[in-house]
Amino acid sequence: MSELPHRLASLIKEIRPPDRRAARLARERQRQLTKPPGSLGRLEELAIRLAGITGSPVPVVNHKVIFILAGDHGVVRQGVSPYPQEVTAQMVANFLAGGAAINALARTAGARVVVADFGVINPPAHPGLRACRVGAGTADFTAGPAMTRDQAVATVERGMELVEAELEAGLDLVGTGEMGIGNTTTAAAVVSALLEVPPERTVGPGTGLDRAGVSRKARVVEAALLQNRPDPADPLDVLAKVGGFEVGGLVGVILGAAARRRPVVLDGYITGAAALLAVRLCPPVRHYLIASHRSAEPGHRLVLGALGLRPLLDLGMRLGEGTGAALAFTIIEAALRAHREMRTFAEAGVSGRQ
Amino acid sequence: MSELPHRLASLIKEIRPPDRRAARLARERQRQLTKPPGSLGRLEELAIRLAGITGSPVPVVNHKVIFILAGDHGVVRQGVSPYPQEVTAQMVANFLAGGAAINALARTAGARVVVADFGVINPPAHPGLRACRVGAGTADFTAGPAMTRDQAVATVERGMELVEAELEAGLDLVGTGEMGIGNTTTAAAVVSALLEVPPERTVGPGTGLDRAGVSRKARVVEAALLQNRPDPADPLDVLAKVGGFEVGGLVGVILGAAARRRPVVLDGYITGAAALLAVRLCPPVRHYLIASHRSAEPGHRLVLGALGLRPLLDLGMRLGEGTGAALAFTIIEAALRAHREMRTFAEAGVSGRQ
Repeated sequence: MSELPHRLASLIKEIRPPDRRAARLARERQRQLTKPPGSLGRLEELAIRLAGITGSPVPVVNHKVIFILAGDHGVVRQGVSPYPQEVTAQMVANFLAGGAAINALARTAGARVVVADFGVINPPAHPGLRACRVGAGTADFTAGPAMTRDQAVATVERGMELVEAELEAGLDLVGTGEMGIGNTTTAAAVVSALLEVPPERTVGPGTGLDRAGVSRKARVVEAALLQNRPDPADPLDVLAKVGGFEVGGLVGVILGAAARRRPVVLDGYITGAAALLAVRLCPPVRHYLIASHRSAEPGHRLVLGALGLRPLLDLGMRLGEGTGAALAFTIIEAALRAHREMRTFAEAGVSGRQ
Repeated sequence: MSELPHRLASLIKEIRPPDRRAARLARERQRQLTKPPGSLGRLEELAIRLAGITGSPVPVVNHKVIFILAGDHGVVRQGVSPYPQEVTAQMVANFLAGGAAINALARTAGARVVVADFGVINPPAHPGLRACRVGAGTADFTAGPAMTRDQAVATVERGMELVEAELEAGLDLVGTGEMGIGNTTTAAAVVSALLEVPPERTVGPGTGLDRAGVSRKARVVEAALLQNRPDPADPLDVLAKVGGFEVGGLVGVILGAAARRRPVVLDGYITGAAALLAVRLCPPVRHYLIASHRSAEPGHRLVLGALGLRPLLDLGMRLGEGTGAALAFTIIEAALRAHREMRTFAEAGVSGRQ
């Protein structure tokens, strides 16, 4: 890996492994609660992991945030999406008006939604939109790099800053979301580059391509990799050459959250690709990641495998926006409330095993 | 099937298939919402199913209730559980005090918990406990029937009444839960009898038996079936001979909810066995059932297959109490909020497919 810029390198140094003592105390508490040991399955595992991540044996999650990072992709010129590029900006307006799926799901989870422009073409003017833009959409990466290396670094830094800016309002649980017409193509290119697997295994229907469309998309990703030859050992090179502005921003959100010991709930394929980049930049980050769901996008399976994560949900969803993350928030909250609010056998006067 | 008692027969006649028009309107609405068609996966399917169940194209779920039915089981004398029988009553007290896993999970889901005594030995005196008892625990069904046929009918009728009694306080979504030391053995006997499969396939570790314990449990179920010879074509005979008071109560809750067009969220193995009995009594009931999760108890897979249900969650849980149902409540609420609150392409000014 080439040398990292100073700010990024110093943030990465702050990222520590989980707190083993807090995790051990949480495990001991789980054994004393009024239920057969292990009978809450992955809810117990979540409570113990969150204890290690936060450093608190009985973690509390009050403030939940879904970060939706938006950006446009020059590669849409190659006909990789059934939707026109202006849908990115239109959906950003929809998020800000509260009318998208993620808004309904975030309300259900009691989470707030932070919408950030990392490089949308013609973004809506709205006081709620966070201005993190690095450019007006990436360049078409079949013809050259998507962005410069400096721009790639800037996206990551702005993602880190976005997390810092939210700490004051309260931030206990970080959910990742994105919007960008064409970004499953970008994610496929990033995953193919990092995992060194052919595009046939990393492309999928996205928002709804037919079989011929998926084949064309694979050829587009193949052309991008041939044209740019991203270095799999250099995550910033991969991000610059075949990434996206919002993908780089997500890398920064993930690194920034891990540096502050905040659990990061991944969404689907695009946030998974960003997590792969983040883990390559800083391997201990993986301890901070929770996989919300398995996306219907076929390449997501590959990403989860590479991250060593087992998703909580598998509901055939493939929308992005952070919708899977928002659904998982309620599972995580349930796990933590059971951990915190249940009485022990001694407190409840319940007999143990014979 | 022998003739059914009058009240039960008349309730069953009230149970109708889902409303196809409401389901069709819900499907049409899903296609207009600002997302690629199908991209919310099973959330879309849930919204459409709930429309059919409730008869409303845009269903609203305000009042969510977890019914926890408790009863004791004479078969515990055969050493089928690692926990002593008094834990049933102790856990009922824990539910009423708000200290069990289901209380924490119901609070997370915004659901109220209704705890009913269908036949606990030494139940706690508590004004919150609903008095539905049919006896002080069932008889040991390895030596004769668990209860009389009249008692079996009484359990079902009291379950129906329990649902009726909750309608006034508001009841839009019914979650099923149970407590009864020994009741995975009872469920295994019911499932073996109804599906005519050997006990080896229907018994499991329950609250934590080791391999030898599971083998002993299988022999106990085998002995019960040989002793009682329940008639698989007569669900009330199966319930009386190898069932439990809370299992019969759950049958009544399921039938009563379906008669009132309320969706019924199943929990794990015991509520699944009750659902099998309910569906055998009245096949259209299956349209009202939602499988919350796949329990770690191995026989649950068999039950879900027989009911033709695919669970929403698979989190390795095996606690009962309604914990899986409570977790699924939030998924269902998310599905309905997305269905109701999302804007359409026209409302949001978002372009459709090219």
